[in-house]
Order: sequence, then C-alpha cells, then structure tokens
Amino acid sequence: MIVFYSKEIDGNSARLIDDECIHCSKVLRKKVGEEVFVTDGKGNLHQGHISNITKKNVDIELTKQMSSQKPSHIRSIAIAPTKNIDRLEWFLEKSTEIGISHIFPFLSARSERKIIKPERLEKIIISAMKQSKNFHKPTLHPLTPLSKILENDFNGQSKYIAHCMDPQQALNKLYSSGSNAIVLIGPEGDFTAAEVERAQANNWKEVSLGTSRLRTETAGIVACHLLNL
Amino acid sequence: MIVFYSKEIDGNSARLIDDECIHCSKVLRKKVGEEVFVTDGKGNLHQGHISNITKKNVDIELTKQMSSQKPSHIRSIAIAPTKNIDRLEWFLEKSTEIGISHIFPFLSARSERKIIKPERLEKIIISAMKQSKNFHKPTLHPLTPLSKILENDFNGQSKYIAHCMDPQQALNKLYSSGSNAIVLIGPEGDFTAAEVERAQANNWKEVSLGTSRLRTETAGIVACHLLNL
Repeated sequence: MIVFYSKEIDGNSARLIDDECIHCSKVLRKKVGEEVFVTDGKGNLHQGHISNITKKNVDIELTKQMSSQKPSHIRSIAIAPTKNIDRLEWFLEKSTEIGISHIFPFLSARSERKIIKPERLEKIIISAMKQSKNFHKPTLHPLTPLSKILENDFNGQSKYIAHCMDPQQALNKLYSSGSNAIVLIGPEGDFTAAEVERAQANNWKEVSLGTSRLRTETAGIVACHLLNL
Repeated sequence: MIVFYSKEIDGNSARLIDDECIHCSKVLRKKVGEEVFVTDGKGNLHQGHISNITKKNVDIELTKQMSSQKPSHIRSIAIAPTKNIDRLEWFLEKSTEIGISHIFPFLSARSERKIIKPERLEKIIISAMKQSKNFHKPTLHPLTPLSKILENDFNGQSKYIAHCMDPQQALNKLYSSGSNAIVLIGPEGDFTAAEVERAQANNWKEVSLGTSRLRTETAGIVACHLLNL
C-alpha cells in the first residue's frame, strides 16, 4: 500500500503538491479515477480516488477514513547537526520510524556544522513517516542557538541534557515512561562545561545514555527509543 | 587518545597487522619509541611504545594495563543482510557502539542479499569498537541459512524472533534485563509464516518491537538497545 502525504486536506478533498505530486503522477503514473491512500501527517489515513491531475497538483476525493492514530506523549530531541550530514539524516530517518514529535537542531560552542537544508531533511522525514506507517509527521524546527533552547521551558516537558562528563544518573532511570520530555544531544566534541552549567541553571537534568561513548546520531536514536518505551 | 586493535597480544608484546599496521605507521607516521594504546578486543586496554616497524607489522612493547572491562551478559542479534549494504553496515556500527556480543547474518526465504564481504564488515566493527571505547569486539559470524540458526540452542540463551505478524508480546516486557539473549530480525519482506512456525517449534518466542513498522536495520538497533538496558 503506497501512501501519499498531503498538507492540504479540507473536508473530503486532498491535494498533493511538490514531490508528492511528482511521485504520484510522474513516477507511479497514476491516472484520474485510480484509488490512492493519503495521510495528513497528523495520525489520519484516508482512502480516496484521484479527481484531477495538473502539472503542479494531484487532487484527490477522499471516500473513507481508514484509521486515526491518537497522538502519543511528546517526545522531543534537540540535537547538534553532525559534520557529516549523512549521520544527521540517519538520525532523522530512524527517529521518525521509532517515533518522535519534535526535532530541534541547534548551534552550540563546538558545533561542527552551521548550516542545514530543511527542505531535504523534511523529505527524509516524510519518506520515513510513510514507510513506518506511523502517520504522525515529526516537526523539524529551524536551526537555533543552544542558548535559546536552554532558556525555553517547553511547556513543562521534563528536560534532560545528555553529555559525556560523567553525569550521575541514567536517562532510563530518571525518565518516567509515557511522560512528555525533551532530551538535548550535544555535538561531536560534546557540550562545554559552561553550556552544561547554563543548562543546570535552567532546570535541565544531566543524564547519561549508558556506559559506551556514543556518536551524536547514535545518542539521538538511543534517547528517542528510551522516550518511546 | 588513538587506540589500535591487536589480535596478537602475547605477554608484554603486541603486533599490529593489516589496516592497523598501515594506520599506525603510514597514516599517522608513528615512529619507533612513540607511545601508543592497544586493545585486544576482549575488554583490555594497554599502554606501550613501538619497538619495531616493518612493512607488514608494527611491534609494540606493552608497559601498563590501563583498564580491563568485564564481559557483560551475552547480547546476540541474528539479522538478514539488507539489500542496500549501507543499511547493514550502519546496523553493525551502531550495535557495536551500543554494545553487542555476537552478530549472526542469515539467509531466509525472503532475503534480498545473498552475499556479504566479511572483511569490510569486520573493519567497520573494529572502527566502531575503538570509537566507542567499548573494548569488547563483537564476533561477526559467517552468513548461515536461517534453518541452522533456528535449530541452534545457543547454550540456553533466551531466544526471540521479532516479526511483523502481530506477535502478542513486546520484547521489552518479556526480556529479563541482564540475561543472555538472542533476537532474530527478519529481512525487508519479513519472515514467512512457515519460518515463524519452525521457530516456534524450536522454542523461539515471538515478540514485537513496538507499534511502528521498523526497517530491518532499525529493528536490529532497537532490539540491541533493549538487550543493553
């Protein structure tokens, strides 16, 4: 079953644009009248048929709601983009498969990558969402300075900072399963001591993710999996 | 701290061969007398200095045992190699970082990849072991037919088969933390019903890894992480 993603669902009609339009009409060569499945990325899956095709849009008349997944608790990861962008892309794909609500890329003192291309990353997220049949599309937030993230109270979510300077407690011991939480994952060279202090002052709890020294993207996946257990 | 891996440690002397020799003498241009660190991949880390360099070997005189990590419980994953080899390589890197004892690649009815290159995969494992500072090198076993894996009793390890045909129990509920265990992860098209039946007959317990549909390599990482919690 191939599922398309539509940001524009209004009543019984959905519109595919950009990549989703191209995938449907050019790659798969779907025609008017053919049956298709559409998700809104908010947990809903619809069945319908194509009512119109233009160069820029595929319009779909929705006939049946197939399923509606309830939103889970909020699972957020703030992560420093990796020098090798493939590693960040892997993190996005895997965390979307496993289940994540928000991704906050940030810039910190030891960040090795200062630019990301949100359009490309968004495509990876949409593809992983469709593949996993987990129809809640995670929100990828704009690249932000770490200081802004640290000062944000995230509406009362439990806030954790995972670093390698021997934090006393493990995330899997501190985290209460099913509660809303955000975990900070540092860059390849880790957070600085000053950044960790500033986090503490802003009520972020220091945690470890186990005894191994994990790469940034592996730490991100491990934290994301813990928030899903 | 750069650590080299030596399969040949005998008393106070260690020898680097192949890639480790090239990395030490050609890439890093280390000279006789220089200080180096060496692991045997069995949990031990030594300090020493280079006593001799030839084209094929770097010999090291070990002067001090830095640390000795105890072996943990046995955490094994049997996995069908993915069509896209990058995905298997990614699994090997990440599972080595997180912590894994044995990897059993297998061939099943729906396997998409029938050949792997153990030498290349071994390099990825060694590199990830050194990077993670988790100095137990996982054992990569030869590609084996699934039937042989299913018939093996794995010395009393708890045996689990993770598949997508709605198994009733979740691995994180069934698995007793810290016990020896092996988890089977199927190919992209999943196990066949006949394979699952045969597994049941051989006392493998059916488990799920959560509600999302995970890719093969993601399922492998998730299972590996659960065995490490």
